[in-house]
Amino acid sequence: MRVGFIGLGRMGSAIALRILGGGHDVVAYDLDERRSTELAGAGAQAVASVADACAGRDVVITMLPDDAALEAVALGPGGIRDSLDTPGIHLAMGTHGVAAIRRVAAAHADSGQALVAAPVLGRPDVAAEGGLCVIPAGPEHAVRACTPLFTLVSRRQYPAGPTPERAAAIKLANGLVLGCAIEAFAEALSLARKYGVAPEVLYAVVTEGPSSSVYSDYGRIMLDETFDRPGFTARLGLKDTDLVLEAGELVAAPLPSIGVLRDRLLGAIAHGDGDRDWAVVAREQARASGIGG
Amino acid sequence: MRVGFIGLGRMGSAIALRILGGGHDVVAYDLDERRSTELAGAGAQAVASVADACAGRDVVITMLPDDAALEAVALGPGGIRDSLDTPGIHLAMGTHGVAAIRRVAAAHADSGQALVAAPVLGRPDVAAEGGLCVIPAGPEHAVRACTPLFTLVSRRQYPAGPTPERAAAIKLANGLVLGCAIEAFAEALSLARKYGVAPEVLYAVVTEGPSSSVYSDYGRIMLDETFDRPGFTARLGLKDTDLVLEAGELVAAPLPSIGVLRDRLLGAIAHGDGDRDWAVVAREQARASGIGG
Amino acid sequence: MRVGFIGLGRMGSAIALRILGGGHDVVAYDLDERRSTELAGAGAQAVASVADACAGRDVVITMLPDDAALEAVALGPGGIRDSLDTPGIHLAMGTHGVAAIRRVAAAHADSGQALVAAPVLGRPDVAAEGGLCVIPAGPEHAVRACTPLFTLVSRRQYPAGPTPERAAAIKLANGLVLGCAIEAFAEALSLARKYGVAPEVLYAVVTEGPSSSVYSDYGRIMLDETFDRPGFTARLGLKDTDLVLEAGELVAAPLPSIGVLRDRLLGAIAHGDGDRDWAVVAREQARASGIGG
Amino acid sequence: MRVGFIGLGRMGSAIALRILGGGHDVVAYDLDERRSTELAGAGAQAVASVADACAGRDVVITMLPDDAALEAVALGPGGIRDSLDTPGIHLAMGTHGVAAIRRVAAAHADSGQALVAAPVLGRPDVAAEGGLCVIPAGPEHAVRACTPLFTLVSRRQYPAGPTPERAAAIKLANGLVLGCAIEAFAEALSLARKYGVAPEVLYAVVTEGPSSSVYSDYGRIMLDETFDRPGFTARLGLKDTDLVLEAGELVAAPLPSIGVLRDRLLGAIAHGDGDRDWAVVAREQARASGIGG
Repeated sequence: MRVGFIGLGRMGSAIALRILGGGHDVVAYDLDERRSTELAGAGAQAVASVADACAGRDVVITMLPDDAALEAVALGPGGIRDSLDTPGIHLAMGTHGVAAIRRVAAAHADSGQALVAAPVLGRPDVAAEGGLCVIPAGPEHAVRACTPLFTLVSRRQYPAGPTPERAAAIKLANGLVLGCAIEAFAEALSLARKYGVAPEVLYAVVTEGPSSSVYSDYGRIMLDETFDRPGFTARLGLKDTDLVLEAGELVAAPLPSIGVLRDRLLGAIAHGDGDRDWAVVAREQARASGIGG
Repeated sequence: MRVGFIGLGRMGSAIALRILGGGHDVVAYDLDERRSTELAGAGAQAVASVADACAGRDVVITMLPDDAALEAVALGPGGIRDSLDTPGIHLAMGTHGVAAIRRVAAAHADSGQALVAAPVLGRPDVAAEGGLCVIPAGPEHAVRACTPLFTLVSRRQYPAGPTPERAAAIKLANGLVLGCAIEAFAEALSLARKYGVAPEVLYAVVTEGPSSSVYSDYGRIMLDETFDRPGFTARLGLKDTDLVLEAGELVAAPLPSIGVLRDRLLGAIAHGDGDRDWAVVAREQARASGIGG
Repeated sequence: MRVGFIGLGRMGSAIALRILGGGHDVVAYDLDERRSTELAGAGAQAVASVADACAGRDVVITMLPDDAALEAVALGPGGIRDSLDTPGIHLAMGTHGVAAIRRVAAAHADSGQALVAAPVLGRPDVAAEGGLCVIPAGPEHAVRACTPLFTLVSRRQYPAGPTPERAAAIKLANGLVLGCAIEAFAEALSLARKYGVAPEVLYAVVTEGPSSSVYSDYGRIMLDETFDRPGFTARLGLKDTDLVLEAGELVAAPLPSIGVLRDRLLGAIAHGDGDRDWAVVAREQARASGIGG
Repeated sequence: MRVGFIGLGRMGSAIALRILGGGHDVVAYDLDERRSTELAGAGAQAVASVADACAGRDVVITMLPDDAALEAVALGPGGIRDSLDTPGIHLAMGTHGVAAIRRVAAAHADSGQALVAAPVLGRPDVAAEGGLCVIPAGPEHAVRACTPLFTLVSRRQYPAGPTPERAAAIKLANGLVLGCAIEAFAEALSLARKYGVAPEVLYAVVTEGPSSSVYSDYGRIMLDETFDRPGFTARLGLKDTDLVLEAGELVAAPLPSIGVLRDRLLGAIAHGDGDRDWAVVAREQARASGIGG
């Protein structure tokens, strides 16, 4: 394929190299000229503008740091919308907000072009080995056209349907899960340290015990809504969160995350779900969001 | 060993059966007489009081639902403290608070007895197959004496030192991690649903992508404090949490957990850690708890 | 009246002095003998035990620091329940939890005695001038009997009905309002300081502007449920909370309270209340608590 | 003065009428032509564009609903920056974010114009009677020039210095205080209702008791940092927040705001401030924000 590549940071470069390695024809652009020159050493053609990175290309890939950069590159004067042939594909692989993806998708559609949002999971070194996860969403033909590129950079793809913003939503939802897990572990660690527990013991317990498969175990319960066969009830969960709060108080450790869980458990109990599996917080969260309940 | 067993709920019964299966001599007591009778069918001797479950025993195991029950059984008139020979071991395997464990440990020590706190991870069906994780803490000789029992019910033990309350702290810290992961997944799921994403796609992304090893990956960074080799900085983490908030706002989904993370990231940035790996929220959490900083 | 007084800390002493000043017959007890001796100098009779403070008294007042002290003094051996004539009144003026008040009330009722919970608002110096607010709740005849005492220490009484725990609930609900206002002001102050604003300007704006009557203005809207005549809608409130978050982010100030408000506003919007007055968070809070909605 | 007025919603119209009533020469513009026509009936001159509302004016006032509108009107083609004489004053009276005010201020300064940010407190009916509070900030000469206008619409002005964004910061900080008070009252109300308390009793207690002057009383302690003369310590505050959580749990009422306060109190205790006045959460909040500590 004839590929344009815009945005050659660490992740962008790693992806561009994989695509070059797959035998594709790549022209590359970055605000920082040294980066495109560097990629030229690997077989790409360095160009001096967004417009030049779009001219005559089947697909233009962007890997940009934020929404402002994406919208400027895509929709600004001389941007992708103005410079990409019709029909052409803009493949946005950065992590972007739903609103920005929505605006860019609408603008491209107006111009007879297609936006595929395909955010990735994994770090640059993982990308270099083709081990990313890719979450593509966009018009079916466009996603299909990009698939050879996805297979070069990723071990798995998770197609999310025809609306690009859904890919953004999943990527962000995953980031929520990841970030909150990091925060919770940080809180647990502070608690352990305050009690003089060796951090390695906590680490071993969390990584080898039930927490290590929490998403597959409890996510499954939530998806299947098998709350009526409780392994551990919301009421028992509340009891334990109270003990966590007590443990924190005795050593003066604020543990803000547990308060959020506690409030959802209380809400679940208030709505009659106290004797269901504590994964029923998913139902309470749905209620709070105005869906189901 | 001569074992007394008090508290024959689902988990207690499963553990008692394993111990019987190991050839130990077990007398069993529960408030609900039918339960001890049932266990008698498997070879235990059913007794009618806590005192009878203690008389002449090397170890008395409790598996009780809450702290009030533990303190009543251990410290009440005719309780374990009054009835267990000196030196004898009270092995408390329920999930208890730090304060209750502290009080019971002190009372037993005053009476020349030993408390071993050994909360477990895993469900009753896992216990029945000897697959639990056990976190024992207490006087070294007492933990050693109980180890044959631990090996009957668990695949792994995580000794937490000579102070029983440390086992409680680890169990609760693990519960914090587990519960917050459940809550975060519930929030992510509500977000995905509001965007029309198939829940199975979110499930696959979370269980197969980087979230699946979040505790081992990020816990390791926190333990080793390798924040200065960022894979993803606190500042970038903040950018993404803002996008999560935006995504939630566009579909009117309250996502309380992410706000906690966001505040820790802001605190980390305020203290000069913005360009370090976002696992540096562990350092910020430590600061907030008055340790390190 | 013949009054027994137990608990002569700063607040207890101030109240006891007012009652002495009203011409009542007071016997006084405190764990710390010096305190009762001190009060004896003002006309009370110092006694050496809880039992002595109850013997022959119409009313026994407790002003104790926590629930454990209250339950020990009321229900322990030689306590008020054992020592107070039948019918007699235990007037508990400390700040206590609902659960403790419930237990003590039940025990007294079983013994043919009455518990009046009458927590106070105001500091000891205000008590010394008879300027407290008192929230009495308990059996009607008992509250009536205590009223002469209330008028000696307070400028206002807020009778809360026949169930003592309701007084505790109101006192705690008021404490919630007070404490959260303190925290919110603290957050606002940190924000102002980070922007180089003179704290006095913020102070003046908050104390002279609409915040100064926030409870009477918005509490009224909530009580009357006049959400359909919005002065400022939930949607606008959300816009402003987003600006607060942005302002905090630009100077790296974590502002946790605003996140709580934001989530309630989002929930209100999710449930169709976005164009109602932002006081409609009361309805959303009710929904989350399983009442109304 | 020759005044241009852009944005004739309820608040804008009320302010414009006051200014007309003060004898000033007003030209008025709104996207919705009917609004400017309406104001013309009161003596203003209706114009058809932003540019026309700027031509030959000393001051152009904007009262716009959000930052996007402000930036479009101020900085877009044919906007205030392009159309206002040099030196001229753009007086922005809407509630705007710090970032937007910063950008607009910089652009005007580049063009030899001045931005005065002067957000207001109060509702349209209060504006109609000249009873608003105004928080002006901007170059001194420009604020002085606008003062006659401020006195027409407000009973008090709170000058916030030469940097316009400070006015935005104060307005937003006040909004934080106001909104969190509304949320806290909503939580208190749900608690009271769950205990069967008459809402009017809670209302009376909160509006007549110490909460009614919480900002002046506790704000003063924070400004003067007189934490060492505690009326009520952080440790006692923590005890009471625990009782609030317990009260909520007994009736299954989630009370998220109190958790935020509780964590700050725990942080304060962790940093050695447990025996200081609970207003010391201000110091803990400052620590968390990287200032002081």
